[in-house]
Amino acid sequence: MDVFTAIQGRRSIRKYKSTPVEEEKLSKVLEAARLAPSASNTQNWKFIVVRDETVRRKLAEAAGGQSWVAKAPVVIVACGTEPDGIMLCGQHRYNINVSIAVTHMLLEAYELGLGTCWLGRFEEDKVKKLLKIPEDVRVVAVTPLGYPSEEVLPRPRKSLGEIVSYEKYLY
Amino acid sequence: MDVFTAIQGRRSIRKYKSTPVEEEKLSKVLEAARLAPSASNTQNWKFIVVRDETVRRKLAEAAGGQSWVAKAPVVIVACGTEPDGIMLCGQHRYNINVSIAVTHMLLEAYELGLGTCWLGRFEEDKVKKLLKIPEDVRVVAVTPLGYPSEEVLPRPRKSLGEIVSYEKYLY
Repeated sequence: MDVFTAIQGRRSIRKYKSTPVEEEKLSKVLEAARLAPSASNTQNWKFIVVRDETVRRKLAEAAGGQSWVAKAPVVIVACGTEPDGIMLCGQHRYNINVSIAVTHMLLEAYELGLGTCWLGRFEEDKVKKLLKIPEDVRVVAVTPLGYPSEEVLPRPRKSLGEIVSYEKYLY
Repeated sequence: MDVFTAIQGRRSIRKYKSTPVEEEKLSKVLEAARLAPSASNTQNWKFIVVRDETVRRKLAEAAGGQSWVAKAPVVIVACGTEPDGIMLCGQHRYNINVSIAVTHMLLEAYELGLGTCWLGRFEEDKVKKLLKIPEDVRVVAVTPLGYPSEEVLPRPRKSLGEIVSYEKYLY
């Protein structure tokens, strides 16, 4: 599938089939994250793959009680290590690096017919406690992974004219 | 081009041809950013396309004097608006949203035969002053865009075993 087709077609999926995700597909999604670029190639990321149903339910509770999250056969928790590292531009490295890797996963999952939904609505402390994540590691994103059982229409987007300017900031 | 092929093949390009980037290709790269998902669909991003050579040179100066940046016929500056917005997980929305959009651009550019290089090494104040970016807008990333004039070998990556664990954080 073309990159552009994946970018156009990807949706946030909130209804999943219980069909398991094949090992080969899971590996390819993780591989997509592994190959992501990162500032100075730090690769300061860790991914926790949760398949245990009890743990998935607790994760869903930590995600503001979004119980649909636990319906997916896999939930991936994306973490950033060395959270103190800051780039010259003033941005932390860890959350930007992890965001690149998770974006790779979302697009690759879609190419493989799998659904995902990037979650920012979760209580980090609860997720850390549940998965024994060390204090100095940050949880940046959580996404379910599984076969979609819904068709989702595209959500509205701003026009290019609203988000692009030339030569200087002009809005 | 397959998503996975793009993920595998994309490189950070630091040598560019002076060949202009076709309007159609530039639009498609920007469209890839426009279609990116964002927390609550906020789309709180702005992209500045710089083609003027003098401005590109000044951008390169603000990017720690990386003069090769100005050699690319286009430089894109990716900004986040509403920088105060924070998600339940504790992460800011703007830098994660912009990172997703820039990752889309990098992959789409590669699909179109174009090179990019995500820069975190720049002085935000200087970039903001140069491009008249308002105080309450953050610059998250800068990337040149153009036809590569170098072949870059893949950089080393950690193994899956080093970055993936199951059911809990185990490293």
